[in-house]
Amino acid sequence: MKKKVAIIGYGGMGSFHAMNITGGSGAYMVRGELPPSDVVELAGVYDIDPEACQRAKDRGLFVYDSLEALLGDPQVEIVTIAIPNDGHKEMAVKAMAAGKNVICEKPVTLNSALLQEMFDASKKYGKLFTVHQNRRWDNDYRAIRQVYDSGVLGDVFNIETRVHGSRGIPGDWRAQPEHGGGMVLDWGVHLLDQILWMFPEKITSLYCRLDHVTTELVDDGFKLEMKFENGVNVHVEVGTSNFVNLPRWYMQGRNGTAIINSFKGDGEIVCCDNWDGKDAVPVVTAAGVTKTMAPRTKDTITTHELPQPKMDVHDFYRNVCKAIDGEEEQIVTHAQVMRVMKVMEAAFESDRTDSVIRFNG
Amino acid sequence: MKKKVAIIGYGGMGSFHAMNITGGSGAYMVRGELPPSDVVELAGVYDIDPEACQRAKDRGLFVYDSLEALLGDPQVEIVTIAIPNDGHKEMAVKAMAAGKNVICEKPVTLNSALLQEMFDASKKYGKLFTVHQNRRWDNDYRAIRQVYDSGVLGDVFNIETRVHGSRGIPGDWRAQPEHGGGMVLDWGVHLLDQILWMFPEKITSLYCRLDHVTTELVDDGFKLEMKFENGVNVHVEVGTSNFVNLPRWYMQGRNGTAIINSFKGDGEIVCCDNWDGKDAVPVVTAAGVTKTMAPRTKDTITTHELPQPKMDVHDFYRNVCKAIDGEEEQIVTHAQVMRVMKVMEAAFESDRTDSVIRFNG
Repeated sequence: MKKKVAIIGYGGMGSFHAMNITGGSGAYMVRGELPPSDVVELAGVYDIDPEACQRAKDRGLFVYDSLEALLGDPQVEIVTIAIPNDGHKEMAVKAMAAGKNVICEKPVTLNSALLQEMFDASKKYGKLFTVHQNRRWDNDYRAIRQVYDSGVLGDVFNIETRVHGSRGIPGDWRAQPEHGGGMVLDWGVHLLDQILWMFPEKITSLYCRLDHVTTELVDDGFKLEMKFENGVNVHVEVGTSNFVNLPRWYMQGRNGTAIINSFKGDGEIVCCDNWDGKDAVPVVTAAGVTKTMAPRTKDTITTHELPQPKMDVHDFYRNVCKAIDGEEEQIVTHAQVMRVMKVMEAAFESDRTDSVIRFNG
Repeated sequence: MKKKVAIIGYGGMGSFHAMNITGGSGAYMVRGELPPSDVVELAGVYDIDPEACQRAKDRGLFVYDSLEALLGDPQVEIVTIAIPNDGHKEMAVKAMAAGKNVICEKPVTLNSALLQEMFDASKKYGKLFTVHQNRRWDNDYRAIRQVYDSGVLGDVFNIETRVHGSRGIPGDWRAQPEHGGGMVLDWGVHLLDQILWMFPEKITSLYCRLDHVTTELVDDGFKLEMKFENGVNVHVEVGTSNFVNLPRWYMQGRNGTAIINSFKGDGEIVCCDNWDGKDAVPVVTAAGVTKTMAPRTKDTITTHELPQPKMDVHDFYRNVCKAIDGEEEQIVTHAQVMRVMKVMEAAFESDRTDSVIRFNG
């Protein structure tokens, strides 16, 4: 039997959850038709804003009269929280106290102390608590993981993950520090969650620089360098003043390089078949000759196509349901969420002090 | 009357100088015919390797019997030194003591103390001493400078300069630390010279990570982050295990981005005409919606073509001759060469200690 979900907060992500659960199409669903979830169904939504409630009603959704009514609905097993970030902790604890399993939107909290309170509540009330780190199911991310896992590049030593836009910070909570605005907490949390899920190995040090191109209030971009104890360096970057995008993924192994240009998963893998096969022919540029940077001849490299995984967005709720029933571990674990939070805190500290932060986790 | 140049060392760069002075064509001159220099002519060359001398003879060049013969030739006004880097200092001082003006190949020395000895000799003997920082005349570099100077991007806050190859370190002096091998000293010195010539403003801090992908002996690549007191951040990167190249130049201003893909100068400038003209339309990716990263609509941006400067490689010797005659300042100054050296030393220190280096110069 499908588990019933209630959504608190019917803004951008609240309505996205509602659509994902009920299935649908329309302006938002540019990827086409989405079938309804096979594991959960929507009991209803609640928002403190009457206009948001009206929008939900207009879309045929059941709207609770109050938060108490939602939390008191015995048929609801899962509550998804999609309210402003600074309210997440209080709301999540309240929902777990009311006997509900909780999915919280990201960024889950503004610091690790508040996050620990949420974990403590999960333990105290014996309820599942997890975070909607949905970009673990992004096709581009799964593609780069598949390339990594395949070993085709040889020992990987460098990964660069970038998301670029050119609209600055939207004029909503994202521009407000008290609501957890800024690109580290908004997009950084996704990119870090992806990388840290990929590498359970310890991070040993990190260095971060925040941007303030369009606003001083919050970071509207950042560049973060991380060293892992397995020898891999990772560059994580978000920009909102990039009118030309650099590639979404760039990964180097000793024997090849993979590039994924965009969310669409376009790009290539270029591998070396024969390191010693041909000596470099020096190349003359406008003002100098170079042997080191001479392009490779075609007979020493092979180009491979990128994998094209097609992930199913419903897998997140499938895992939550199985985890509630004790049939699976929850995919987004407390330890992982805390690790990402600690890295973000260290990144802020690195920028504030313009220094390298030693890390051990 | 043309000034006479003698070249010490007839390897890769020595023969490149000879060709640039005499003009020519052939395998090396992939950019086509080059006319002879209009300001200098080649008196002759010398190399300790008899095979190198024979190659020079085979190309019709005059070859001195000994270093002493070269330095004792009264018609020679300029000596160009293109021997292994660790011999530069001794040879340059000897040539200046013999009354010659000196052009030294890069990297000029392996540290700033040795460099100071060269400057001291220049002062003591009253002879011009400069470094062949020829990539100041690279077309791609001049193009990005023109974009910067034009102001088309608005206030520039980020510049990324990368050179990528995929052949590792060539098996010559570049792999030998005692001869000044490694990519910081080989290519980094060019990229830093370009950036530091562009920004006389002070660097306040820097962070560097060296790569050792194909060898432990020297760095076979690096990533260097610099903060300037004018608010510009600069990323300098060299890689020799990059089977797909990232763009040669990437520059961001508040109102636009410029990209130059390769030495050829291909790329584009994309500027924002109307920051507030259109609100973002959220975009659904495989596993999530994004408003921040929604692509811009075409009516808010304008694309410009890149400038296509055609630099003349002869300009370097033209400046040297005029500087000797007191008609121009020398373009590659002692202060500039020392500043680049100090940044490279700080970069090595940053990597060794994995820390941010405070800089004030």
